[in-house]
Amino acid sequence: MRKPILTLTTDFGTKDHFAGVMKGVILGICPNVDIIDITHEVDPFEISEGAYVIAQAYRFFAPKTVHVVVVDPGVGSARRPILVEAGGQFFIGPDNGVLAMVYSKVAHKARAITNDKYFLQPVSRTFHGRDIFAPSAAHLANGARPSTFGKLIDDHLKPAFTEPQRIAKRVWVGTVLHIDRFGNLITNLHIDSFSDVRVKPFELAIGTQILRRLGLTYAEIEPGQAFAIVGSSGYIEIATNQASAARALGCGVGAPCELTIA
Amino acid sequence: MRKPILTLTTDFGTKDHFAGVMKGVILGICPNVDIIDITHEVDPFEISEGAYVIAQAYRFFAPKTVHVVVVDPGVGSARRPILVEAGGQFFIGPDNGVLAMVYSKVAHKARAITNDKYFLQPVSRTFHGRDIFAPSAAHLANGARPSTFGKLIDDHLKPAFTEPQRIAKRVWVGTVLHIDRFGNLITNLHIDSFSDVRVKPFELAIGTQILRRLGLTYAEIEPGQAFAIVGSSGYIEIATNQASAARALGCGVGAPCELTIA
Amino acid sequence: MRKPILTLTTDFGTKDHFAGVMKGVILGICPNVDIIDITHEVDPFEISEGAYVIAQAYRFFAPKTVHVVVVDPGVGSARRPILVEAGGQFFIGPDNGVLAMVYSKVAHKARAITNDKYFLQPVSRTFHGRDIFAPSAAHLANGARPSTFGKLIDDHLKPAFTEPQRIAKRVWVGTVLHIDRFGNLITNLHIDSFSDVRVKPFELAIGTQILRRLGLTYAEIEPGQAFAIVGSSGYIEIATNQASAARALGCGVGAPCELTIA
Repeated sequence: MRKPILTLTTDFGTKDHFAGVMKGVILGICPNVDIIDITHEVDPFEISEGAYVIAQAYRFFAPKTVHVVVVDPGVGSARRPILVEAGGQFFIGPDNGVLAMVYSKVAHKARAITNDKYFLQPVSRTFHGRDIFAPSAAHLANGARPSTFGKLIDDHLKPAFTEPQRIAKRVWVGTVLHIDRFGNLITNLHIDSFSDVRVKPFELAIGTQILRRLGLTYAEIEPGQAFAIVGSSGYIEIATNQASAARALGCGVGAPCELTIA
Repeated sequence: MRKPILTLTTDFGTKDHFAGVMKGVILGICPNVDIIDITHEVDPFEISEGAYVIAQAYRFFAPKTVHVVVVDPGVGSARRPILVEAGGQFFIGPDNGVLAMVYSKVAHKARAITNDKYFLQPVSRTFHGRDIFAPSAAHLANGARPSTFGKLIDDHLKPAFTEPQRIAKRVWVGTVLHIDRFGNLITNLHIDSFSDVRVKPFELAIGTQILRRLGLTYAEIEPGQAFAIVGSSGYIEIATNQASAARALGCGVGAPCELTIA
Repeated sequence: MRKPILTLTTDFGTKDHFAGVMKGVILGICPNVDIIDITHEVDPFEISEGAYVIAQAYRFFAPKTVHVVVVDPGVGSARRPILVEAGGQFFIGPDNGVLAMVYSKVAHKARAITNDKYFLQPVSRTFHGRDIFAPSAAHLANGARPSTFGKLIDDHLKPAFTEPQRIAKRVWVGTVLHIDRFGNLITNLHIDSFSDVRVKPFELAIGTQILRRLGLTYAEIEPGQAFAIVGSSGYIEIATNQASAARALGCGVGAPCELTIA
């Protein structure tokens, strides 16, 4: 039997005891689990960032992995905890959209988690990561059947993630989804939809610059010059060799970009 | 047999190799242990912060968990390494008060760790996390009996942690113990001692503000307004919905607050 | 059978999904491995910092541990992935010098990793940590024989790490290799070469100061005064009790220092 795997993606940071306490709760319920941190550095309350990170990460985990995602400004309010099955894996988090980039385009089942025998009692109003999400995930990793957590629902949040808008025959407006550690700007232009950039002249306008070059590697471009590149998740990124494109271009999450393909 | 669990709480940061090296030493002695990071981001040398973090975290771990706490400005000096048994768990760290919030109010046994067969030889003067605390904890997790580490002591440090001071019949002065990732100010006013705030009018004065509202959840308060809330550890916190109360109020660790209950 | 151990040292940070994804790939290939983070906070693209960190860390791990080191500004270019056997352990990373402080002074074998059956397909141009280094390391931890990864090579990079220069009979010029979490300046003056500082008067000039005192512990020196001390890795460090020597002296990585021994 393979050991169960459970991942954590939160905005809890690593300075407090929050993530460690979740792990204590998990190991108390499911002692043989492997717990993997995806990140605890989602910007506080930034649901869309958490949604992006887990959507990029989960594909690289084994079937039946349990992913816990807690970016939860509404903790203690009426928003529900949910359990989602998608792509052969499990996802547990608040019903606020943080799991939606995982399930938005694929067949999935969603349940409202209502079975409080899986919760740590008494349930606090302020730390559902510890009291609801971690113990529920640990019971699931331990073999509890999804149907025992609560009823199937279909009214879970399905936010419209920003898709590129076509504004002319060969012109699309996209946006910056994420800035990574290296300052690369990850746009919402996915190579599967815009594979023509590989073979046709194009212009990608962002900030005050117009990029016309698609790099194959970061290293091939002279240091300091911005260029487009297909990143490891398939999205078109704006990068600068060995420097931060975000700083060079003065652009952040949400910045618009305009792609014209000849 | 359940796998042993060992937690780490230090001020070593995550940029250097210090925490990783401790884990290498631990796994060399006790290969089947689960090592859990509580945090390595205690502010350098801030013993009281380390004391707060481990005191909040340990309750959520299984019996016999071994907690290693290294915030140790006196490394290499005469301060002793100690092993504390409290609440069915084990604690290893320097005798400088960093474990005192764990044992200050409960029955416990403390030993000075003197058995150098548990140390990594030669013992350096500057990295007892690696040479004394990690290997001692690993041997303990591996089943070594506490009595083999050294003699029982009773003169271990018992600092007087700041308790709220009563300054009038219905007025107490407390202090800020900790600021968490979200900017919430955690005071030393515990709900067990001040449960009247749940049912009676009160005023909590901090900085230039007087708070009169006890929130049940962060989300119920309009963004930007400060309020009191009972945090997940039972202490009264000052919070601001989706913003940093510490920044809004300009208060830090050690800031005074005054609670008046009608 | 002891569980295999695999360590990670990267400049990927902990905000993105990069390190978590590497772990997902590793566990998919070698489910029973213990994965230990040395650090993901190497400064972006700082090969020499990564080289320093892994060289300090690896000695404290069990025989046959697999160390993955990814600081890789040349990702996707012609630089080769390599597998090094040294000191009874294994090292996998790009052939750009990041492993060279491990093998520069010891007998070792190096191989160019060319067997793409160990890679995650398709191999991206931008994330070899995920597609080449992590899966190769996982297969190695899983028992694959080193010889199956590729041919022995002898032209792997052997950069000349800065060694102290003797400029007069009893005078050497060294440099600052690293600044640790506490602001200690770690020089490249190793106590094995300069053990006379323990027994003879010396002067260590750095910035605008001349240090004449070798401390045995951080704690014995009055707060605020800079002094020399033999650090936990054997290098002479410049420290300040409970304060950052780097900040006090205004020195960074690469700063020169001059040691005169009487």
